[in-house]
Amino acid sequence: MKVFGKEYTAVWMEGDKVMVINQPLLPHKFEVLPLHNHKETANAIKTMIIRGAGTIGATAGFGLAQAALEAPADGFREYLAQAYDTLNKTRPTAADLKHALDRVMAKIDAALTEDSVLTPHSSVLASARKAAVAEANRILQDYVENGRKIAEHGQQLMKDGTRMLTHCNAGWLALADWGSAPAPIYLAHRRGRDVFVYVDETRPRNQGANLTSWEFMQEGVPHEIIADNAAGFFMRQGKVNIVITGADRIAANGDTANKIGTYEKAVLAKENGIPFYIAAPTSTIDLNCPTGDDIPIELRDEEEVHYLSGRDESGQIRKVKVSPDGSKAANPAFDVTPAKYIAGIITEKGIVPATVEALRKVKQ
Amino acid sequence: MKVFGKEYTAVWMEGDKVMVINQPLLPHKFEVLPLHNHKETANAIKTMIIRGAGTIGATAGFGLAQAALEAPADGFREYLAQAYDTLNKTRPTAADLKHALDRVMAKIDAALTEDSVLTPHSSVLASARKAAVAEANRILQDYVENGRKIAEHGQQLMKDGTRMLTHCNAGWLALADWGSAPAPIYLAHRRGRDVFVYVDETRPRNQGANLTSWEFMQEGVPHEIIADNAAGFFMRQGKVNIVITGADRIAANGDTANKIGTYEKAVLAKENGIPFYIAAPTSTIDLNCPTGDDIPIELRDEEEVHYLSGRDESGQIRKVKVSPDGSKAANPAFDVTPAKYIAGIITEKGIVPATVEALRKVKQ
Repeated sequence: MKVFGKEYTAVWMEGDKVMVINQPLLPHKFEVLPLHNHKETANAIKTMIIRGAGTIGATAGFGLAQAALEAPADGFREYLAQAYDTLNKTRPTAADLKHALDRVMAKIDAALTEDSVLTPHSSVLASARKAAVAEANRILQDYVENGRKIAEHGQQLMKDGTRMLTHCNAGWLALADWGSAPAPIYLAHRRGRDVFVYVDETRPRNQGANLTSWEFMQEGVPHEIIADNAAGFFMRQGKVNIVITGADRIAANGDTANKIGTYEKAVLAKENGIPFYIAAPTSTIDLNCPTGDDIPIELRDEEEVHYLSGRDESGQIRKVKVSPDGSKAANPAFDVTPAKYIAGIITEKGIVPATVEALRKVKQ
Repeated sequence: MKVFGKEYTAVWMEGDKVMVINQPLLPHKFEVLPLHNHKETANAIKTMIIRGAGTIGATAGFGLAQAALEAPADGFREYLAQAYDTLNKTRPTAADLKHALDRVMAKIDAALTEDSVLTPHSSVLASARKAAVAEANRILQDYVENGRKIAEHGQQLMKDGTRMLTHCNAGWLALADWGSAPAPIYLAHRRGRDVFVYVDETRPRNQGANLTSWEFMQEGVPHEIIADNAAGFFMRQGKVNIVITGADRIAANGDTANKIGTYEKAVLAKENGIPFYIAAPTSTIDLNCPTGDDIPIELRDEEEVHYLSGRDESGQIRKVKVSPDGSKAANPAFDVTPAKYIAGIITEKGIVPATVEALRKVKQ
């Protein structure tokens, strides 16, 4: 999507470098960061230089392709197995991560002939490397394409006067391009519809205030940032007529893990008779995970609650502490919204109900 | 309550100065601020140097007493009428403000004899001034006493294993002393009960992270600060067994205005079968306000959403911007929790249901 008028994706590859938009600097500074090897790439995922289900997936795919370019002929497959492991362990809740790694690894394995697994010939090596990079690029393109399709399918929920609430960042920075939750709004706005978005600030990491609002601002979509606490107020006032958020993982029964606070918005939407939708590519659906209770919830460092970062009066990005020394904090990164609160899941294949049958069918 | 081992109230009077704890500096710096005249006092209320229903009431009472000390004999009553107006306009949603001003003004009027209203004799003037200061001190003592009684009545809800969630600051800083919402916990903890509190950060002004946690820390009550978004998560996990918040105004039918986000917690508590209580002195009940729809909701400056303040690495309190230039924000300061979500109201006269009949009775 557009940044100062130029089209970008959230991650791409240039030679053996993985290029990412340095998201913690946003919205204050726009910087493209080159990652020189798969360990730097893994670290960028782990430290949330990039975040969001799709961008994590695409970046992990590029990371493994990068490992294929780095790996010596001697011990090639072992090096890749280690790189897979390094990349796979960066974030525990993201289904897209493993999905992308498996896709790239399968192409590498297909290129390696049986007899050369330990030390492949140079031509086999070259074709394995080429296959890895090509697949990583296809993963990125699939996200771009999926986002566009989510935007199209979401049009049936958009009309003049749509006032959406969204939580966290499920925009193009999170999903490589287009995004999931805001994709229908982007397209409706481009088609001239009168739409408006409330953007939850999304504490503790402020992805809404920092990123989603920045994306909407760059695209010219009318929006207002609100404290997470104000979502219920505006719902009760009748100023929200749809809630759409992204997803980090959708269990087989439709229970959905997403950024902490999503469950709160879903309950409030139900209480106020407002439809609550999840927008996500079908790769986010994990049929091997029966219910939300089986999704591990990442407990992150309490420092994320104690500290906040922003731009000071001199333009410097600065961390400040908001809590007293001596107080503890608890910091669950995700919560699970049970399927019963979800009106539907907007996927690249259409809008489907959050049920076992529908999700199994759409995954085929 | 205790600050570094010494007992304080949130506001008091020394000679003609109103002394307040400078709350925006907390939890980073403890400072007592002298306010030299009623306009400084009004400004401290307006700019939220002090906040919270009871502390606003007590401070306003002292402010009007201060105006009585300042006022010239010539035009004494007119000066006080203007001071009343100045103080009354500082915050639109606080019922305690007007209540305190009316109490002090009534004592002044009682002291003024009919024939000396325009220019009272010096002895009348002295007795009006004395009456004003005495009444302002009585208002403070009433808050202290009410807090202690709320703590006592709240003991029927406290047990070993109580895990409370609270929102915003309804502690002693907000209510002159003891506080409302945390008062039962303070007392239960002092009596050796095993209690724990989740403290909502309370964006946009972070009164939970800044003040409530600081109060609990000074008192030694076990607690964890959480992002407002995480309240639903912990409720759903069964880790919260009671929610208690304060109130800024309780309408005749029990609908309650309190800090933005309170409504969200009430809905989530209901959805999770957790009792949600309001703790407040009966002065917060406004029988002249029929329902929550009649409570004006203060829309505050959007800068409060865009900016956050905290302590930087050098110990300086610093404001940082979290949102992109060009994005707008919306900032309702309060919301209304309908009576149907409220299990009961813990007052200095006992725990009463949130109904017209019960509230009318308890106000008598």
